[in-house]
Amino acid sequence: MDNVFKLIEIVGTSEESYEKAIKNALDKASKTIKEISWFEVIQQRGTILNNGNIQYQVVVKIGFKLIV
Amino acid sequence: MDNVFKLIEIVGTSEESYEKAIKNALDKASKTIKEISWFEVIQQRGTILNNGNIQYQVVVKIGFKLIV
Amino acid sequence: MDNVFKLIEIVGTSEESYEKAIKNALDKASKTIKEISWFEVIQQRGTILNNGNIQYQVVVKIGFKLIV
Amino acid sequence: MDNVFKLIEIVGTSEESYEKAIKNALDKASKTIKEISWFEVIQQRGTILNNGNIQYQVVVKIGFKLIV
Amino acid sequence: MDNVFKLIEIVGTSEESYEKAIKNALDKASKTIKEISWFEVIQQRGTILNNGNIQYQVVVKIGFKLIV
Amino acid sequence: MDNVFKLIEIVGTSEESYEKAIKNALDKASKTIKEISWFEVIQQRGTILNNGNIQYQVVVKIGFKLIV
Amino acid sequence: MDNVFKLIEIVGTSEESYEKAIKNALDKASKTIKEISWFEVIQQRGTILNNGNIQYQVVVKIGFKLIV
Amino acid sequence: MDNVFKLIEIVGTSEESYEKAIKNALDKASKTIKEISWFEVIQQRGTILNNGNIQYQVVVKIGFKLIV
Amino acid sequence: MDNVFKLIEIVGTSEESYEKAIKNALDKASKTIKEISWFEVIQQRGTILNNGNIQYQVVVKIGFKLIV
Amino acid sequence: MDNVFKLIEIVGTSEESYEKAIKNALDKASKTIKEISWFEVIQQRGTILNNGNIQYQVVVKIGFKLIV
Amino acid sequence: MDNVFKLIEIVGTSEESYEKAIKNALDKASKTIKEISWFEVIQQRGTILNNGNIQYQVVVKIGFKLIV
Amino acid sequence: MDNVFKLIEIVGTSEESYEKAIKNALDKASKTIKEISWFEVIQQRGTILNNGNIQYQVVVKIGFKLIV
Repeated sequence: MDNVFKLIEIVGTSEESYEKAIKNALDKASKTIKEISWFEVIQQRGTILNNGNIQYQVVVKIGFKLIV
Repeated sequence: MDNVFKLIEIVGTSEESYEKAIKNALDKASKTIKEISWFEVIQQRGTILNNGNIQYQVVVKIGFKLIV
Repeated sequence: MDNVFKLIEIVGTSEESYEKAIKNALDKASKTIKEISWFEVIQQRGTILNNGNIQYQVVVKIGFKLIV
Repeated sequence: MDNVFKLIEIVGTSEESYEKAIKNALDKASKTIKEISWFEVIQQRGTILNNGNIQYQVVVKIGFKLIV
Repeated sequence: MDNVFKLIEIVGTSEESYEKAIKNALDKASKTIKEISWFEVIQQRGTILNNGNIQYQVVVKIGFKLIV
Repeated sequence: MDNVFKLIEIVGTSEESYEKAIKNALDKASKTIKEISWFEVIQQRGTILNNGNIQYQVVVKIGFKLIV
Repeated sequence: MDNVFKLIEIVGTSEESYEKAIKNALDKASKTIKEISWFEVIQQRGTILNNGNIQYQVVVKIGFKLIV
Repeated sequence: MDNVFKLIEIVGTSEESYEKAIKNALDKASKTIKEISWFEVIQQRGTILNNGNIQYQVVVKIGFKLIV
Repeated sequence: MDNVFKLIEIVGTSEESYEKAIKNALDKASKTIKEISWFEVIQQRGTILNNGNIQYQVVVKIGFKLIV
Repeated sequence: MDNVFKLIEIVGTSEESYEKAIKNALDKASKTIKEISWFEVIQQRGTILNNGNIQYQVVVKIGFKLIV
Repeated sequence: MDNVFKLIEIVGTSEESYEKAIKNALDKASKTIKEISWFEVIQQRGTILNNGNIQYQVVVKIGFKLIV
Repeated sequence: MDNVFKLIEIVGTSEESYEKAIKNALDKASKTIKEISWFEVIQQRGTILNNGNIQYQVVVKIGFKLIV
C-alpha cells in the first residue's frame, strides 16, 4: 500500500532557543496529530519582548501520515 | 507561556482589486478561525472573465493562534 | 459572488511513477474534499526500498473551493 | 485534443494603481492575442515621475491558447 | 561566429503523463520553430477533468537558435 | 562619470491599500533622501487591527543616487 | 551514535521518461556508493535528439550514509 | 499615456567574456526590435569548446517598448 | 497615523550558538537604534577558528520604527 | 597564486541541537578533508525518534582549499 | 570579542564591464566606510545609452565591520 | 546507452576578472576530471585584498560525464 502524508505549517515560539521553539510547535501539533513523521524549518524570525528577552519564532512544516 | 500559531493558505478572488480579494479571503477564513494574527501575500494571479472584467486572484498565508 | 479557495499540501508515494504518486495523493485527499480545482507539484523526492524498487514521493499543493 | 498555451511577459505602467497597470498590460497584449487565458504578477516596481506622481510598474506573465 | 538563441515558454497538457504534455508542447512549438535546441521544465501543475481524469500541465522553457 | 546608487529597505503601512502604503514609505524616506530613483516591492503582508480594519504592510527597496 | 550523510548531484538521461532517467542516475551512482538513503529531483531538462526522440535529463541530489 | 513594454529572453555566447556575450545577444535582438530599454542577466553558464577555449553563455531578459 | 519602518542587515558572530550570534547582532544594533521591532534570520554560515572552535555567523534583517 | 576551493554537502544529525549536528558534520568531514575554510547552513529538518526525542538534521555546504 | 558586521546594498555602473561597475560601487562606498570585508553580487542589469554603448549595472551587497 | 553526469561545485578566485576566476576553477578541476561538459555560475562574491586589489570569487557548478 502506498502511504499518503499531509503537511501543515506551525509557528512555535520560545525565549530560550530555536530548538525549544520547534519543540513547542511539535508538542502543540501532536495534541491533534497521531504520528509526526518529519519536519522542515521554513523560516526563523523573532522579536525583543518588553522584558528585554529575545523571543525566537520558527515556522516548521510538519509531515504526518494520513490514515482516513 | 509560549504561543503557538498555525498557517493556512487561502485564495481570495475579486473583480475590484487585490485588496478586495484579500478581504474576501480573510472574511471567509474568519468564519472558522477565531483570531487572525497576520497574513502574507504569496502570489497574485488573475484571469479575464466572460463579461470582460479582470478577476484578481490572491494567495494569502494566514497566521492564527492555536488554542487547543 | 467571489469564490474563495483553500490550499493544502499532500505527499503521495508510488513505486510506479510520479503521475501515480500524484493520483494517490489526489485520491486520498478527495475522501474529505468535495471538489479539487487544481494542483501544483511542489517537490519530487524518493528513496530506494528494501525490495530494490524506487519509491517516488511527490509533494502536491491542492486547491479546492471553500463552501462554508 | 490536448490544448497548448504560450506565456509572454508584459510590463504595464500606471500612475493610478497596480490594478490599472495590469489592465494596461492586458489591453495592449489583447491587440495581438485573441484570447488571454490567465496572468501571473511576476514583479512590482515603480518610480517617482517629474510631476511628483508615483508610476506603478508591473511585470505580468500572460498565458493564451496556441491555435496555429 | 557566436550563436544566439531565444527562449520561449510553452504550456503543454496531457491526460497521460508529464512526458506526453512536454511532447505536445514541443510538437506545437516545432510548427513555427525550425530547430529546438533544449528545454527546461519550469512548473508542473494539473487539474481533474469532468471525466474524472487528471490533466497534467507542464510549463517548458524552449531554447532555439536565432537565424535572422 | 559613472553614477552610483544606494538601496535601502523601508516598510510602509496603510489601512487603505498597498499603493497608499508604498506612498507612505516613499514620503518618509524622501525626508532624508534627496532624489528617489526607483523602488521594488519586496514583500506584501498585513494584519487585522483592533478596529476590524485590514492594515496593509509593504516592504519596498528604494534606490537613490549617492552624491557624497 | 549520530549518523552523518553526504549529498552528491548526478544527472541521469533517458529517451523513455524522467523516472527512467532517475533510475539510470541511481544505478550509476550505486556502483561506487554502498547505500543510497534518499534523493531529490533538482531540475528537469531535455533535448531533441537527431533521431527525433526526446532525451529527458534529470538532476538528482542523492543522499547516502558516510561510514569512514 | 501609460507605456507598455515586452520582455523576451535571449541567450548570447562568446569566447571572450560575458560582456561580449551580452553584446552579441543585444546586437541580434536589435535587428528585429526598434528600441531596447533595459536588460537583466538571468543566468550565466558555459562550456569548454573543442579548441580548448571557454564559451561563455548568458541568458538576458530584454525589455522594449510596445508600439502597436 | 500609519507607521513606517526601516530594515537593516547585520551579521552577528559567536563561538557559542546561533542564538548568541543573533543576540550579539541585536546588542550592537541597539546602540544606534532606539527600538527594534522584529528580526528575520536571512542566512547561517560559519568557520572553524584557529583554536579549533566553530564560529557561528548569522545574517539578521532587523526592523525598527522610523521616527524622523 | 589564485586559490581554488571545493564545496561539498554534508548532513549532520544530533538529538541535542542544530549546532551539535553541524559539529558532527564538520567532524566527520574533517577526517578526509585537511582544512575546512567555511560552511553554510543549507537546510534544517528533523524527525521524532522512537524514544520521543527530536533528531535535528542539518545540511551544511562545506568549503575547503583544493591542493592537488 | 565577537565581531559584528553591517551589510549595505550599492549599485555601481560602468560602460566598460561588470568588474569596473563593482569597482565603482566599492570606491564610492569606501568614502564613508573604513574597511570593506567582502561583497556579493546580487543582480546584474544594464541599458543601452544614447551613444550606443552598453551601461553595465551591478547590485553589490557590501559587508563591513561595525566599530561603534 | 544513456549517459550519466556528475555535478561538483568549485570556487575559483582571481584579481583580474570573473572570467579568469572561472578559468582558474576549470583548470584546477580538469586535473582530476577527464572531460568537463558544461558549467553554471552559481554565485559571485569578492573581497578587497591587503594590496588594495579586488579579489573576484566565483562558485561554478561543473558537469562531467561519469565513466565508471
